[in-house]
Amino acid sequence: MKKLLVELGNRSYPIYIGSDLLNQAELYTQHIKARQVIVVTNTTIAPLYLDKVLKNLCKFDVETVILPDGEQFKTLETVSRIFDKLLLGKFSRNATLIALGGGVIGDMGGFAAACYQRGIAFLQIPTTLLAQVDSSVGGKTGVNHPLGKNMIGAFYQPQCVIADADVLDTLDDRQLSAGLAEVIKYGLIRDIEFFEWLENNINALLARDKQALAYAIERSCLNKAEIVSEDETETGVRATLNLGHTFGHAIETGAGYGTYLHGEAIAIGTCQAADLSRRKGWLNDGDVERIISLFKKCNLPVNPPKQLDSDLFLELMAVDKKNVNGQIRLILLTKIGAATLPIDVDKTLLIQTLNTYGR
Amino acid sequence: MKKLLVELGNRSYPIYIGSDLLNQAELYTQHIKARQVIVVTNTTIAPLYLDKVLKNLCKFDVETVILPDGEQFKTLETVSRIFDKLLLGKFSRNATLIALGGGVIGDMGGFAAACYQRGIAFLQIPTTLLAQVDSSVGGKTGVNHPLGKNMIGAFYQPQCVIADADVLDTLDDRQLSAGLAEVIKYGLIRDIEFFEWLENNINALLARDKQALAYAIERSCLNKAEIVSEDETETGVRATLNLGHTFGHAIETGAGYGTYLHGEAIAIGTCQAADLSRRKGWLNDGDVERIISLFKKCNLPVNPPKQLDSDLFLELMAVDKKNVNGQIRLILLTKIGAATLPIDVDKTLLIQTLNTYGR
Repeated sequence: MKKLLVELGNRSYPIYIGSDLLNQAELYTQHIKARQVIVVTNTTIAPLYLDKVLKNLCKFDVETVILPDGEQFKTLETVSRIFDKLLLGKFSRNATLIALGGGVIGDMGGFAAACYQRGIAFLQIPTTLLAQVDSSVGGKTGVNHPLGKNMIGAFYQPQCVIADADVLDTLDDRQLSAGLAEVIKYGLIRDIEFFEWLENNINALLARDKQALAYAIERSCLNKAEIVSEDETETGVRATLNLGHTFGHAIETGAGYGTYLHGEAIAIGTCQAADLSRRKGWLNDGDVERIISLFKKCNLPVNPPKQLDSDLFLELMAVDKKNVNGQIRLILLTKIGAATLPIDVDKTLLIQTLNTYGR
Repeated sequence: MKKLLVELGNRSYPIYIGSDLLNQAELYTQHIKARQVIVVTNTTIAPLYLDKVLKNLCKFDVETVILPDGEQFKTLETVSRIFDKLLLGKFSRNATLIALGGGVIGDMGGFAAACYQRGIAFLQIPTTLLAQVDSSVGGKTGVNHPLGKNMIGAFYQPQCVIADADVLDTLDDRQLSAGLAEVIKYGLIRDIEFFEWLENNINALLARDKQALAYAIERSCLNKAEIVSEDETETGVRATLNLGHTFGHAIETGAGYGTYLHGEAIAIGTCQAADLSRRKGWLNDGDVERIISLFKKCNLPVNPPKQLDSDLFLELMAVDKKNVNGQIRLILLTKIGAATLPIDVDKTLLIQTLNTYGR
């Protein structure tokens, strides 16, 4: 087992990465301070892993909430179901919430923990590659609004993250690929050596080679932990983690939440960001080709949906969190392995990118 | 104008107290960092003060949200209306929210500001005595749940609080009295000199003597600011501000939100806390009589509603935020002017208090 630390002063916490972690009771229980525990999961994960987790919690008073699975359920209404259960169970402020699932469960569970009685402790047990390498680390929690992705939420850090690579055995191929989109992101924004490693090992990852997956998770979490430690609430460098996300969130909202997996939308959005970076003169055709090619090898989409024309894209992108006074700002690449902070972009170039299909 | 500071490091902010403050544009505008401003108010306050506030904001892009008035509307659903407006208006993370109203508007406006894009700036312009002396200061924001008062929320500090005593001219008598309940609280928990001043000046306050009201607001805010600076997130002394609140919240929830004003429920709850403090041997009959008598002079209720029997009370009190593992904990008085931290209470004594009527 590897243990990484997200350094945030008195809000620091470990990320445990390894095999067979779900069965190690002390990993959970050392982070639980009182008797009341609520496990939040979904209909896909509950039959696979809920019993395994509950077995480790026999000394506690445990309630469970099983939510429907999918981005389309990441709403205030669904989070309310967690609040209902907490109140019906008379949960106190010293209770602990465990989020057992992918990014959607982690985001909602974390947000419920942030808001219940103005904040209770929570543990992240991510069960998708995407959640293990990205969304479970760093304390971004929240829900979607019909007009914008992740628009309602809180920065709220967990007590720990338990990333058990074994749970990826039950992940379907589509989810595995979606997770790789965020893995590739770390290479693109700050770690060219990792990007090159990914180019050379992508087939092993797709074949679920345990060693390759463990390395990819660890290196991704290392990158994420460094960035989050430096800039917890995204006043600077943390925004680079949003490469492709302004495009991607517009795709998720515009196509209807749940149509694309988050990582799929990010793959498309990152190709768009690369295309725009080329138009700015920062990447050359070969760089863009390399990026698109790696996403394609992961069986990820690289073209935006046809129904999103540039007008609709611009409308949806106008509520992005990086914007200032409604002005769209984007993360672009200055080269493979280096990203800009959010910058205003020439609208003509942006529209050219938005009208680019057929990669 | 008086200016008090709530000292919280990089989250410190001023409370402005005085007359004719709503007309002083620079008081607002110095705390607004970007163009987009949303004013959240209610149907009672909008016709009285919204134009006055908007007149000072002519240089900004302003949206308004006018919510229904009353504790029964302090819900996630109502807060969602603020989110809708923010997203329809394409509000960015550098926008500012102004909460113009009583405690309900301040709590919901503050919570919306805490959650929108994981946090935007907000200003408190409290328009009731209760909000000016208590709820607008200290960063407690949130909404009610059918099973418990203020159960969903965040600690989130404003940029400033503007307490204009002139707005109390339009406050109805019932609201004025409700505010006095929280004023009296400060005397009871930590400021016997102020309690004695209140006993001597209660008629002037009820007659809306400007000087007396200004003094009561200032002294209350001084007490609150000191406590909040010491213990922002209520790990210790801040809990003493909850004198009477465990009883009071149970009354508000049990009678149905909006039946009692918050301050009315707190008056009853404080009499119950005093009664229990007497049973513990800390107050004598004369102390309890003095306390009840002061609330009565304010035309505040001092007996709980008959439909709340002790079983229902215990059930409702079981979700209080001070509880640990579901065990009820209360703030009591060791004398007039001194309060305990949350303590477990002998259930027999508590039930005796809950069955006490006819004060």
